[in-house]
Amino acid sequence: MRLSQSFFYTLRETPSDAEIKSHQLLLRAGFIRKLGSGSYAYLPLMQRVIHKIEAIVRAELERIQAQECLLPQLHPEDLWQESGRLAAYQSEGILFHLQDRHKRGQVLAPTHEEAVTLAVKDVLKSHRQYPAHLFQIQTKFRDEIRPRFGLMRAREFIMADSYSFHTSAESLEDTYQQVGTVYQRIFERLGLNVVAVEADSGAMGGQKSREFMVLTGAGEDEVLYTQDGLYAANAEKADSLFSPPIKSRFTEHHKHHTPNTPTIASLCAFMDCDPTQVVKNVLYQAIFACEVLVPVLVSIRGDQEVNSTKLSNVLSEMFSGLGGLQSLEVPTAEQLQEWTTGELPLGYIAPDLPDSLIAFREGVHGQFARITDFTVSELENFVTGANEPDHHVYGANWGGNFSLGYLADVRLAKVGDRARHDPEQLLQSARGVEVGHIFQLGDRYADRLGLRYQDAQGHAQIPLMGCYGLGITRLAQAIAEQSHDENGIVWTLASAPYQVILTVANMADPAQAETGLTLYQEFRQAGLEVMLDDRDERAGVKFKDADLIGIPYRVVVGKGVQQSLVELVIRQTGEKQQVAIEDVQLVLLGLCVDRKPSSGVL
Amino acid sequence: MRLSQSFFYTLRETPSDAEIKSHQLLLRAGFIRKLGSGSYAYLPLMQRVIHKIEAIVRAELERIQAQECLLPQLHPEDLWQESGRLAAYQSEGILFHLQDRHKRGQVLAPTHEEAVTLAVKDVLKSHRQYPAHLFQIQTKFRDEIRPRFGLMRAREFIMADSYSFHTSAESLEDTYQQVGTVYQRIFERLGLNVVAVEADSGAMGGQKSREFMVLTGAGEDEVLYTQDGLYAANAEKADSLFSPPIKSRFTEHHKHHTPNTPTIASLCAFMDCDPTQVVKNVLYQAIFACEVLVPVLVSIRGDQEVNSTKLSNVLSEMFSGLGGLQSLEVPTAEQLQEWTTGELPLGYIAPDLPDSLIAFREGVHGQFARITDFTVSELENFVTGANEPDHHVYGANWGGNFSLGYLADVRLAKVGDRARHDPEQLLQSARGVEVGHIFQLGDRYADRLGLRYQDAQGHAQIPLMGCYGLGITRLAQAIAEQSHDENGIVWTLASAPYQVILTVANMADPAQAETGLTLYQEFRQAGLEVMLDDRDERAGVKFKDADLIGIPYRVVVGKGVQQSLVELVIRQTGEKQQVAIEDVQLVLLGLCVDRKPSSGVL
Repeated sequence: MRLSQSFFYTLRETPSDAEIKSHQLLLRAGFIRKLGSGSYAYLPLMQRVIHKIEAIVRAELERIQAQECLLPQLHPEDLWQESGRLAAYQSEGILFHLQDRHKRGQVLAPTHEEAVTLAVKDVLKSHRQYPAHLFQIQTKFRDEIRPRFGLMRAREFIMADSYSFHTSAESLEDTYQQVGTVYQRIFERLGLNVVAVEADSGAMGGQKSREFMVLTGAGEDEVLYTQDGLYAANAEKADSLFSPPIKSRFTEHHKHHTPNTPTIASLCAFMDCDPTQVVKNVLYQAIFACEVLVPVLVSIRGDQEVNSTKLSNVLSEMFSGLGGLQSLEVPTAEQLQEWTTGELPLGYIAPDLPDSLIAFREGVHGQFARITDFTVSELENFVTGANEPDHHVYGANWGGNFSLGYLADVRLAKVGDRARHDPEQLLQSARGVEVGHIFQLGDRYADRLGLRYQDAQGHAQIPLMGCYGLGITRLAQAIAEQSHDENGIVWTLASAPYQVILTVANMADPAQAETGLTLYQEFRQAGLEVMLDDRDERAGVKFKDADLIGIPYRVVVGKGVQQSLVELVIRQTGEKQQVAIEDVQLVLLGLCVDRKPSSGVL
Repeated sequence: MRLSQSFFYTLRETPSDAEIKSHQLLLRAGFIRKLGSGSYAYLPLMQRVIHKIEAIVRAELERIQAQECLLPQLHPEDLWQESGRLAAYQSEGILFHLQDRHKRGQVLAPTHEEAVTLAVKDVLKSHRQYPAHLFQIQTKFRDEIRPRFGLMRAREFIMADSYSFHTSAESLEDTYQQVGTVYQRIFERLGLNVVAVEADSGAMGGQKSREFMVLTGAGEDEVLYTQDGLYAANAEKADSLFSPPIKSRFTEHHKHHTPNTPTIASLCAFMDCDPTQVVKNVLYQAIFACEVLVPVLVSIRGDQEVNSTKLSNVLSEMFSGLGGLQSLEVPTAEQLQEWTTGELPLGYIAPDLPDSLIAFREGVHGQFARITDFTVSELENFVTGANEPDHHVYGANWGGNFSLGYLADVRLAKVGDRARHDPEQLLQSARGVEVGHIFQLGDRYADRLGLRYQDAQGHAQIPLMGCYGLGITRLAQAIAEQSHDENGIVWTLASAPYQVILTVANMADPAQAETGLTLYQEFRQAGLEVMLDDRDERAGVKFKDADLIGIPYRVVVGKGVQQSLVELVIRQTGEKQQVAIEDVQLVLLGLCVDRKPSSGVL
């Protein structure tokens, strides 16, 4: 690429609407341009970075026998209806939806479980054709509530998504682990630091999932991890040890007048007890796809908080017949009026708050979904509300005074908690950006969409599926976020749009101009990826641009050509060195050795 | 690729809804699967064909300094409003349209003139940055009225589209010609026969355009061409010589009673005259974007027909202020009642049909757009209607009796017409599929979207643009349409998903199985693109599959391994030949030499 003959520009000023460094730098260095909310043009330098990442991803996925395909982006709405995901995605509002000329609903795909299942249905029909693994690299769409941080949360983004099909849990587990390993290799090849964390499966469904996070202050997710490197989880999913409760001194069951004690703190002060001795009862309202409101009452220990993601998962499981959880919230006073028969004893609720308080009304489930968190399921002689304002009971026990609800872990793990694998290890917190996510889906999609195979005995069986996704454009920006300095981006060698930039300091000097062009042609012939900055600009402008766009190696053709010397500058370290013109190609070839592992024979 | 471990299938039966051979074969051979109307999954074999075509297109476009980028697929509707194309595309109904969560209109792009102009606006600002040429390879969307023929007319399809920016008409012409040449090289490398034809610019606008057509009976376009190869045009655009008129014997102007002569044939029989002596006046109604109906009256020679594409272009030009032509039709009796004041003398209309016949009504233009075709503009002493039922005039002349309207070529060229470049050559007709189209757009998009540059004198100027498109998925299917036989597809070497298929006749024979695997590994290491058919199937099934999927070279590892022989079968000719195992790799390397021209140094 000769800059004098190419589409190339950089900006002096930092665009005002870019909040994080990588976003600012990609805009300033001419890699991307914003065309609309969360919508970017990938300009030629960016497209080269994307192609480099894609090539690595493609090669690594092919190593484990995944085969590339390409699925449609526009899906008939019916397909999403059939899989049962339409309502959930629509309630989140992230699904772009349209009608075609025949008024048939279509969605712009954010993910392809349905499409790939349909694509292999009726053709992947013998157990001998399993396992199978298909991948694609493609633009996905999400109607984000708040697109931000450039390519980190955009409405269009490139993903490498893959889908595997299996006749046994072992085979699925195998591929799931292989993909995890391959993803780590991809991150290593790109020079990215990524941590694998336990994750919630969200709208994808399935039992097991793992996220890959780039740790950065600009991340939107919270990661809880231990110093020993043995535990890391998305805060939505994280688990930890909870402290043992302090033994309660209330050995007899009594109701007590406790005026003005609606909070745990005020109650403990009044009763002179510890929060670990209190069962707190928290109200929620859950709304499901078939427009049913379920009142929810969670009993959890006084020193703990509810994790709404965990609670959502529990409710989705309990009420799977109601077609998907649409919303879950702590009801406001106004909302309460809509489904209660009278004033609730807020702040003084007991685990047995009577169902008779729920209004008998269409669309309202007539019973509380009572959920008991593990933090209180073995508590003895505890303190809790008395279902009457300004009153609590103490010395209460399960079985005797209250019935246990649906037992579950709905507790929020927090910084400072002790880790389950080693109580000496305390949870620490960091911000992260998800760049990959792998899932064991089980038979959900195959079951609902009718994918079946014949086993060796000729019986029809439902296959198991896994799905795996890597954010290509997000990876590209994550590299710039992890690797930059005050002068610009510092691309890793594997991700850089070009390996070398040849900067001719003064184009008006024929010796420099000629040497520059000669080296450019020689470098290209030797297989180096090289840009030639042969613009009529001052040397200072060219050096600034080279630093800004972040090419790993800069060769400056300046006055030194008189002594047959050029200057080699390492972008990452700023190191400079005079090199004889006749040696520079070999030096560069040595530095740019392709470090990718050799690919295995399939 | 080892078939025993890969996603692979073929179908015995021809799918019932596939009308043309290439569509049937791609479905049967497991290259594509239909997921919805005009919506296809490209399965692994297809994806390899697509990648091969894309790689050739990429290399050839880079030869002429085009740089790859990627633009968003979802565009704000405002952008299309600004360029003035929204109405025209919406009236055709081919634009997928949706609203995002903020109720902002978005369109799914069928083409990217607006987006690319916006992407370079404010950064391509000095004349020194011109010319510039950006391309992308991407899925496009069209809400087709009738998706058909598989990938030939799908709702999603892959295009390689490029856009160039210039400071002079010469520079635009240069790039336009370069792209034309490069397209021809691409077709040649792919082994496709393609003819370049003059074309109509349609909704794209601009002055000059050329289409590239694959000639095939399954084509949806009509091409008119001459045997000498010097002329070819889309029938929508084609021009030809019209025969000189026979001199009229009606030297005096008279009105005549001509009962029951509403057609040219009946009139000529009654008057004993030739159709070339008659001026026929044809009514149309044109509806424009701002909901105005314009009555149109076209005067054309009695032996000629009106070309509605040419007429649409003329009207769009005449009424460019009315925001784009939405529809053009010959009005029905009912439609006529809506905008006329009384009965029209249909079949007896004269060029001066009075405007007073048009109803004075909102949304109806009060004057006929009178268009005079070149076939009648110099006619003398002609016969035409008298604006009175059962009456004509003869011996009429322009100037004296009638005024000429807007002079234009709106005549339909037909098979058998004499060619303009050589009257000895007669136009012939063929069906074709458009696989490429290049346009000189002029300044339309830059002007409307505010793209400006500073010239050497510091003055703001509007650049000129070109745009160029190649249908990647259409090319892929066109190859299968041009190159197949009764047994299946016959891919050209440059487009084949694999160059070689190694077929082990009997996997139960250890010598065959081992030789097959050894050759597979050796071929791969030598850089051959090879599939190994190591399935537990009968040899006959494997041979049929190999023919169906159309791999250029088949190496059969059968009983001959005892004599160290394998069989080499050429797919295209069916030729078979015994080759020593030790020689077969070299023979194949010779056959698969990459024939692509070496790429020049940029």
